[in-house]
Amino acid sequence: MGMMDGIDVLVSEVGPRDGLQSIKPVMPTAAKLAWIDALVEAGVREIEVGSFVPAHLLPQLADTPEVVRAVKAKHPGLHVAVLVPNAKGAEAAIAAGADKLTLPLSASETHSLKNLRRTHEQVFGEVARIVELLSALPAERRPQFEGAVSTAFGCTLEGEVPEAKVVALAERLIALGCDEVGLSDTSGYANPAQVRRLVKAVHAAIGPERMTGLHLHNTRGLGLANVVAGLDVGVTTFDSSQGGLGGCPFAPGASGNIVTEDLVFMLEAMGLRTGIDPEGLARARAVLAEALPGEPLYGFVPDAGLPLGFRRAA
Amino acid sequence: MGMMDGIDVLVSEVGPRDGLQSIKPVMPTAAKLAWIDALVEAGVREIEVGSFVPAHLLPQLADTPEVVRAVKAKHPGLHVAVLVPNAKGAEAAIAAGADKLTLPLSASETHSLKNLRRTHEQVFGEVARIVELLSALPAERRPQFEGAVSTAFGCTLEGEVPEAKVVALAERLIALGCDEVGLSDTSGYANPAQVRRLVKAVHAAIGPERMTGLHLHNTRGLGLANVVAGLDVGVTTFDSSQGGLGGCPFAPGASGNIVTEDLVFMLEAMGLRTGIDPEGLARARAVLAEALPGEPLYGFVPDAGLPLGFRRAA
Repeated sequence: MGMMDGIDVLVSEVGPRDGLQSIKPVMPTAAKLAWIDALVEAGVREIEVGSFVPAHLLPQLADTPEVVRAVKAKHPGLHVAVLVPNAKGAEAAIAAGADKLTLPLSASETHSLKNLRRTHEQVFGEVARIVELLSALPAERRPQFEGAVSTAFGCTLEGEVPEAKVVALAERLIALGCDEVGLSDTSGYANPAQVRRLVKAVHAAIGPERMTGLHLHNTRGLGLANVVAGLDVGVTTFDSSQGGLGGCPFAPGASGNIVTEDLVFMLEAMGLRTGIDPEGLARARAVLAEALPGEPLYGFVPDAGLPLGFRRAA
Repeated sequence: MGMMDGIDVLVSEVGPRDGLQSIKPVMPTAAKLAWIDALVEAGVREIEVGSFVPAHLLPQLADTPEVVRAVKAKHPGLHVAVLVPNAKGAEAAIAAGADKLTLPLSASETHSLKNLRRTHEQVFGEVARIVELLSALPAERRPQFEGAVSTAFGCTLEGEVPEAKVVALAERLIALGCDEVGLSDTSGYANPAQVRRLVKAVHAAIGPERMTGLHLHNTRGLGLANVVAGLDVGVTTFDSSQGGLGGCPFAPGASGNIVTEDLVFMLEAMGLRTGIDPEGLARARAVLAEALPGEPLYGFVPDAGLPLGFRRAA
């Protein structure tokens, strides 16, 4: 995907999709674009800008086609990712010019039925149709296609999710033609030992180059600890959301997504290059805060500031 | 110290000292004892119950001698730790019957002068006097003596603290007769790469058995990530504070000490036995909250709850 030029870790910003879909206010398109501009200015290389779901289900993301087109036109170097729940969504995403399609598949079938209203087999059917769509495209217009295994570390409905099940789903997604598989800790259940174990198992099954990304939540405060565990076993892409946007407002501090500001600080302090400037992130946060007055934003580094004498990774 | 019987990691609760000294209200002695009772009931093996500093400097901890005596009488199996700033404090701590004395030494001399009003050499003088006091005691009455190197990972006044300086201070403390050395991230500057590097360097200099404990802060959200790094290099004792007590009330989420509830959850979820029951911790938190009405308590697990199907380490 060419995203790793000059960086060690890819921080994939999911706020404009995962964050905005979780809050009540609908951010105007112009405000989304201004926020994305500021993120790009800070050095963010990949942004999930929206989701191709029916507009009546997620009015917050109804402008996704427009956002994709505008962002692609303005920032040709940016890797523009979108969520697609099915082949119909993928078709629209391809038409808009997205660089990466992510299709969620919930390891917990109970969760899959509740969330996507589909069994695993039905989701696999959509995957196959998307692969067909993609193979009809010329190589230079073909977006990357990731199967994202959600509830991979446990499920609020089913509890423990067997590792063998996650591995089998990852194998199936690759066999059907996904370029890669990501693992999502949707419920914030993961712990560092489990992250190391499950990533290793998936790597052994499908090859490390096919599973490079983790989507971690900070629900129980273990988000960055799980990042460290992921780094240890060769994960190079981490999703995060600016300000932890989409966190649960009735539980202070109990954000959903890990916070981009804290993640970037940690990685850069560890000597891992993200390409992202923490000061630039602070400016993007101000743009976001102005567009969403009253919406709580999370993060420790934004409150505490950078350490005296802090230097980014060289 | 016999504390590691049947457990893999020692969680050393510092709330009654480090937490209570950082907040305005003075908790009545009876309330402290009720809180400590609840912590012991939850399975906590070591608690720092106070500090032997002049009462006018820290009225919150003026009852430390009384607390030590009462706790030792009621919980003979508990490892009762106290902070001592100097030989005079150590004498009083020994008289009260403390099991462990911790003397802070700030790696940053600027911080040492501001905080303890002593140069490094003056602190070493106190260490030597304490070692003398201790060697006069019969072995069975001799408390453990730890030199705690604070600002070991950076200082808000000096910025970066050279690792060679921390190593040299650790060597000096051991040469003077400390039983062991701890490292404290007083300023919340540490990152996981640095934790691994510095702990390894200190281990190489004084032996791993002489440096087993880390005191980490969560100021920038990296507290538990740094715990994971510490575990990787053989650290087996971590300080934490229930509810992150002593956190900074004007910066939501920006707690000081790492939160005991979150730490215990992470360790137990990773399969590391702490001896501590998360449900028991929740009961102790309720005791604490009742004793300190209006005081903010932190932590993610207390808000989010334990995962469905959660099991402690076997």
